[in-house]
Amino acid sequence: MNAQQGAQPRRIGVWVIGARGAVATCAAYGAAGLAALRLEPLGLVSEDPSFAGLGLAPFDALVFGGHEVRPGTLREAGVELVRAGILPAALLEELEAEARAIDARVRPGIVQRCEAELVGACESSGERGLAAVERLRADLRAFRAAERLERVVVVHLASAEAGAACPREALDPTSWRTALESGAELPASLLYACAAIEERCPYLNFTPSIGASAPALLARAHELGVPLAGQDGKTGETLLKTVLAPMFAKRRLRVLGWHGYNMLGNRDGRVLTDPDHKAAKVRNKDRVLRELLGDPALHSHVSIDLLPSLGDWKTAMDFVHFEGFLGARMSLQFTWTGSDSALAAPLVLDLVRFLDLAARRNESGPITALAPFFKAPLGGGDHDFSAQHERLLAWARGAS
Amino acid sequence: MNAQQGAQPRRIGVWVIGARGAVATCAAYGAAGLAALRLEPLGLVSEDPSFAGLGLAPFDALVFGGHEVRPGTLREAGVELVRAGILPAALLEELEAEARAIDARVRPGIVQRCEAELVGACESSGERGLAAVERLRADLRAFRAAERLERVVVVHLASAEAGAACPREALDPTSWRTALESGAELPASLLYACAAIEERCPYLNFTPSIGASAPALLARAHELGVPLAGQDGKTGETLLKTVLAPMFAKRRLRVLGWHGYNMLGNRDGRVLTDPDHKAAKVRNKDRVLRELLGDPALHSHVSIDLLPSLGDWKTAMDFVHFEGFLGARMSLQFTWTGSDSALAAPLVLDLVRFLDLAARRNESGPITALAPFFKAPLGGGDHDFSAQHERLLAWARGAS
Amino acid sequence: MNAQQGAQPRRIGVWVIGARGAVATCAAYGAAGLAALRLEPLGLVSEDPSFAGLGLAPFDALVFGGHEVRPGTLREAGVELVRAGILPAALLEELEAEARAIDARVRPGIVQRCEAELVGACESSGERGLAAVERLRADLRAFRAAERLERVVVVHLASAEAGAACPREALDPTSWRTALESGAELPASLLYACAAIEERCPYLNFTPSIGASAPALLARAHELGVPLAGQDGKTGETLLKTVLAPMFAKRRLRVLGWHGYNMLGNRDGRVLTDPDHKAAKVRNKDRVLRELLGDPALHSHVSIDLLPSLGDWKTAMDFVHFEGFLGARMSLQFTWTGSDSALAAPLVLDLVRFLDLAARRNESGPITALAPFFKAPLGGGDHDFSAQHERLLAWARGAS
Amino acid sequence: MNAQQGAQPRRIGVWVIGARGAVATCAAYGAAGLAALRLEPLGLVSEDPSFAGLGLAPFDALVFGGHEVRPGTLREAGVELVRAGILPAALLEELEAEARAIDARVRPGIVQRCEAELVGACESSGERGLAAVERLRADLRAFRAAERLERVVVVHLASAEAGAACPREALDPTSWRTALESGAELPASLLYACAAIEERCPYLNFTPSIGASAPALLARAHELGVPLAGQDGKTGETLLKTVLAPMFAKRRLRVLGWHGYNMLGNRDGRVLTDPDHKAAKVRNKDRVLRELLGDPALHSHVSIDLLPSLGDWKTAMDFVHFEGFLGARMSLQFTWTGSDSALAAPLVLDLVRFLDLAARRNESGPITALAPFFKAPLGGGDHDFSAQHERLLAWARGAS
Repeated sequence: MNAQQGAQPRRIGVWVIGARGAVATCAAYGAAGLAALRLEPLGLVSEDPSFAGLGLAPFDALVFGGHEVRPGTLREAGVELVRAGILPAALLEELEAEARAIDARVRPGIVQRCEAELVGACESSGERGLAAVERLRADLRAFRAAERLERVVVVHLASAEAGAACPREALDPTSWRTALESGAELPASLLYACAAIEERCPYLNFTPSIGASAPALLARAHELGVPLAGQDGKTGETLLKTVLAPMFAKRRLRVLGWHGYNMLGNRDGRVLTDPDHKAAKVRNKDRVLRELLGDPALHSHVSIDLLPSLGDWKTAMDFVHFEGFLGARMSLQFTWTGSDSALAAPLVLDLVRFLDLAARRNESGPITALAPFFKAPLGGGDHDFSAQHERLLAWARGAS
Repeated sequence: MNAQQGAQPRRIGVWVIGARGAVATCAAYGAAGLAALRLEPLGLVSEDPSFAGLGLAPFDALVFGGHEVRPGTLREAGVELVRAGILPAALLEELEAEARAIDARVRPGIVQRCEAELVGACESSGERGLAAVERLRADLRAFRAAERLERVVVVHLASAEAGAACPREALDPTSWRTALESGAELPASLLYACAAIEERCPYLNFTPSIGASAPALLARAHELGVPLAGQDGKTGETLLKTVLAPMFAKRRLRVLGWHGYNMLGNRDGRVLTDPDHKAAKVRNKDRVLRELLGDPALHSHVSIDLLPSLGDWKTAMDFVHFEGFLGARMSLQFTWTGSDSALAAPLVLDLVRFLDLAARRNESGPITALAPFFKAPLGGGDHDFSAQHERLLAWARGAS
Repeated sequence: MNAQQGAQPRRIGVWVIGARGAVATCAAYGAAGLAALRLEPLGLVSEDPSFAGLGLAPFDALVFGGHEVRPGTLREAGVELVRAGILPAALLEELEAEARAIDARVRPGIVQRCEAELVGACESSGERGLAAVERLRADLRAFRAAERLERVVVVHLASAEAGAACPREALDPTSWRTALESGAELPASLLYACAAIEERCPYLNFTPSIGASAPALLARAHELGVPLAGQDGKTGETLLKTVLAPMFAKRRLRVLGWHGYNMLGNRDGRVLTDPDHKAAKVRNKDRVLRELLGDPALHSHVSIDLLPSLGDWKTAMDFVHFEGFLGARMSLQFTWTGSDSALAAPLVLDLVRFLDLAARRNESGPITALAPFFKAPLGGGDHDFSAQHERLLAWARGAS
Repeated sequence: MNAQQGAQPRRIGVWVIGARGAVATCAAYGAAGLAALRLEPLGLVSEDPSFAGLGLAPFDALVFGGHEVRPGTLREAGVELVRAGILPAALLEELEAEARAIDARVRPGIVQRCEAELVGACESSGERGLAAVERLRADLRAFRAAERLERVVVVHLASAEAGAACPREALDPTSWRTALESGAELPASLLYACAAIEERCPYLNFTPSIGASAPALLARAHELGVPLAGQDGKTGETLLKTVLAPMFAKRRLRVLGWHGYNMLGNRDGRVLTDPDHKAAKVRNKDRVLRELLGDPALHSHVSIDLLPSLGDWKTAMDFVHFEGFLGARMSLQFTWTGSDSALAAPLVLDLVRFLDLAARRNESGPITALAPFFKAPLGGGDHDFSAQHERLLAWARGAS
């Protein structure tokens, strides 16, 4: 599996912001399960034969650590996922040692004051601005050194932040540094992304939070040669939208309205009950349609509602009303029932491997070929999933 | 609309087998409505800007005629579709003269004895074998001459025939002629296709019936330079399958089972209650999945059931069970509610235009670039709708 | 049909507030169609053999008139419903004279200033308070006299008012009169109801607006011997809730969450986009579940969203998550696709007939036996539809 | 919990035919879990306060045993249900001793030769006819004696038998005895039921197999004073039908068609792929609608299809097409996702308790008040679930 490596196999760090969240827990247990050959590689795009021969990092090369603001252990997070019927109980038992090792590598995270209430019980150091960034950077350096890692990929998986949280001066490349030094409260995702980029760590933002999307940070990533991927993982309802909307467009059926109702139950759901936190996610889910259907006046509606008993499961019910030949009005309705964590976690592993590849190829800034993984791809481009997938394949081929 | 033509605009015949069926009626009224600028060109793939500049036949160049075995008038068929809420009542009134003109060009069809009962009240001439073909050919020639047509495209829209109806010797290029001359009962679709090909008319089979798919006829089409398109139009549930299955494959989610339940109410539905007639259609709907998912052992199920009150409307309910990372089991369910006729009719007009283009380009045999229109594309190829659409675009570009 | 009547058949007035709205239009054309034996009596509860022998008013005894604030004719409203596929075109043509006769009996309505904007173009006389009530009463008296009516039933079908619109002093029996005379702006539905009650007209409120539910008006209805029915017609999603929730309760399956998503497209939908106007309707839809399931802490969610292209059609998608033996978590999902007007109109006719019966029996105040027709039955009681229907049957039997 | 009992608490035997099937396993673990206060009494109708004070057998009074033809242990059957996410893993561990004790009381069952293949690996004694009945009776007597049971309730939970399997002479009270003594092959369910009735054990048939429904056995049950309950448990889709169809009837909406598509994955599903075995179940599901809607010509369709990956879960998708006022055509679609075993098991416990009550009251023959539990209630009667539940309540009250 790792034949092209010499006597010293490569070790790649996966530093997860939100290290004991549901997606992170699935990714960590899952990677260990794959390394131990206890799991089938389902849901992993990068395991397709098309990507063989690229020297993608094997699963046993991945070393997990991260920042976290909530108390608890990885095993406790795993127990919840076993109860939800997502993580197999056997895996939890077999990987007890691995889980403890990861826990030992988790460091306190940071959280913006205005977010603290939503996040709940919180183990956050109190630094702000530059001081926070310096401490986060030190954590990344320590991780790399202690684990003798060739590279650390930073993965943002923390709960969605409120959209309006970022002062304008922190976005602008010219004023960014001043804002940081002033000690003003900035979105935590921005500070994490800043630390990653300054440490030249490939950075993945799987959430709708701002992360590295601020122009100031995009510019720094280019300067320092850091590859970026984001943002807002495309796992379920939006994935379907980017598959179905092109069908309507190609068949020239006019979409009269598209209503998407999302119900979910976990911590993500709880955070998203807050209108400010929901806004960015809804916007990403909705914009996709307008662009795919080429209709800026499209009538569409997206809601995300908490249904606590669903736990980590998510049910989306969409209704599409459309018009065809002779003005006939027809409809498509679908219900998607999935585990967000089981859908997201393998994509996170895919993206870690692809970002590592991009770094080896000295690519920097947004890797636009990774668009099929995101609701709001950094660097833009067509939302058509098939077209995106073709570009991913072409990018991969260009490398081998 | 037709500026590139000279003083004598081109006239293209559309000769429909099943000239007063629901799809044919929608196509005829629809083309006249488009020519009169009374309809928006919804549901018409060929109206996409990508296909501009190819000189596709304008709608006012299309002249309809055809064969039919059931009594009645086009207007009567239209009235039924107005009642079903598919054809706008105003269109029926405005196009009364056009409908009468088409009726005047409809000639008695033929029907195999074993099909007659299912078809119901029947206006069929009694010829068999070669005599039938000769008469059908004479009808085509008379149509072309009377209407001064540059070309006649023959479109097969008759009810699905029983799959097992064709004797083996009629399929084989070496024995075909003998079978024809022997006066043995052959599937009507085969005789229609034979007449079309011998008259060098581009031929479209929108049904699952055998039509020009017999090796003997494929060979003749190549010999005589006749372009073919077929078979079994992809309008609803199967279209969705060829859009959704590639998504599962690209995301490497394992489909554990795919059950598709189709309910429909019109004459098509009645004919398909007969197991022999249903077989071909179910097979086409089902095979698509196995090929797209690369899993010959895929568990799948397709049923087509009559629900008389649905009339021309069709409801398909599909349930997809799939497995992802960590073995998590998830599902996608969809309900498609569409008018089969309103979905099929514009595709028939698209295909007439594209076959006319192929003929102008001197292409012959199955036009494989037309695969996105069919459940079982003549000439085979990938079933992925996006990939098929890309090839259609490339074919079009190759021409302009 | 009307044998128990003498030479002079009874004539019953149906005075509709919102006389050209979609429900009113369906009720008026429908009653005329039933009288002319052009329609099957589908959707009419009162046509059940259980209610034979009660001397319910025959359809040809019903004479329509009403108040309306929007311009236009009944026929124009009918044309819209023909386009929506709800009213048969033939009925519209055959009943042209009847429609004109009804138009001639429609008088300008009233509308509270704060509602006027939502209602749109408005033909409202400007009276307020007592002056308005006096004018409305005069209209009712004139209608009764001109048409020689034995009784006038007043039916409130106007768009939902904002929930918060009514000052407290107008609700209280002791201060009500003063509030009325002060000329303060009061909800139009309250003034209409007041006029009906003062004129001793049986009164039906099919909307969530306050109407006769104010304690002051309830008291007056008892004093004057006026029977009342209301409020908020139970036509679709809520009907299903009151049928399905008792099943869960009887089987002791614990409902963990019930989310109901309603999409609709007509004027009702447009008015309900306003949060204040939506509030009462959502509350009525939601409260039903808590009471039926005996769980005041039930997690539930109701939304009503505008999807303009649906027109008069309404689609509700509900998701019910529940828990059974051994803690197993299961779900029920349903999609209801109905024409609100075609569902509501026959119930309006039923209620007119039942209120007329109640008046003949000298019943006054809320007729609680009419609970199966309402989301928030006046007089309260169990929401279980089966139990409600049993009580309706018992009430009817009590009379025969 | 059992305060009304004296020093010697009552012990009630529950003798299950198919003792290690999925429903039986859930019932046995569930009863033990309830007795140990480790489970909430969800899904148990008999736990409703309406049934308090009837002295229903407490769960710790139930002693399980039974006949089984398949090898394995109860724990192994439990492990499968844990994997399916139905039985909580903790319960399996805590009740290990109880499970072993039940296994020790399981005796080899019988199976008709023609069924053996479908049932698979088989531990069946080879007796036929009278010899089989004698041996089964001996097993029942031994169980009663060994466990000092006040009463043994026999519960038929074995896989559905082929509908046509029973010779006519075995049904008739006059020829039954001869058929039995002739040694002819008779349906196993008939022999089991015969043994139960001859031993004066209250008998419950939760399956569509013939069991005690043969006229000969019904007569014997009356003679010997044995109460009976059956047949074919109403747990999911049919339950919904008997709740929804009365709604359409009461609102006088005409059902134009009702299609129900059932998908299931367990052993039941496998057995039901056989057309003969499916027939009885489909008939029961379908007849219910015709009777409820009072329309013998109702268009309806039921299918039951195997989807192996669903395991013990069942998904039913129903589509109801209906017509209302003005001829408007509307639809209701629902999807029910449930664990058949978790739905059925508590009803089995309910029925054991109610049959014990009936026996204490000296009732014999079909207990028609138990109709709400069955698709095809023994003794017939209305299928309306609400009405059935009312009669159950009345029966219970009559006793207290």
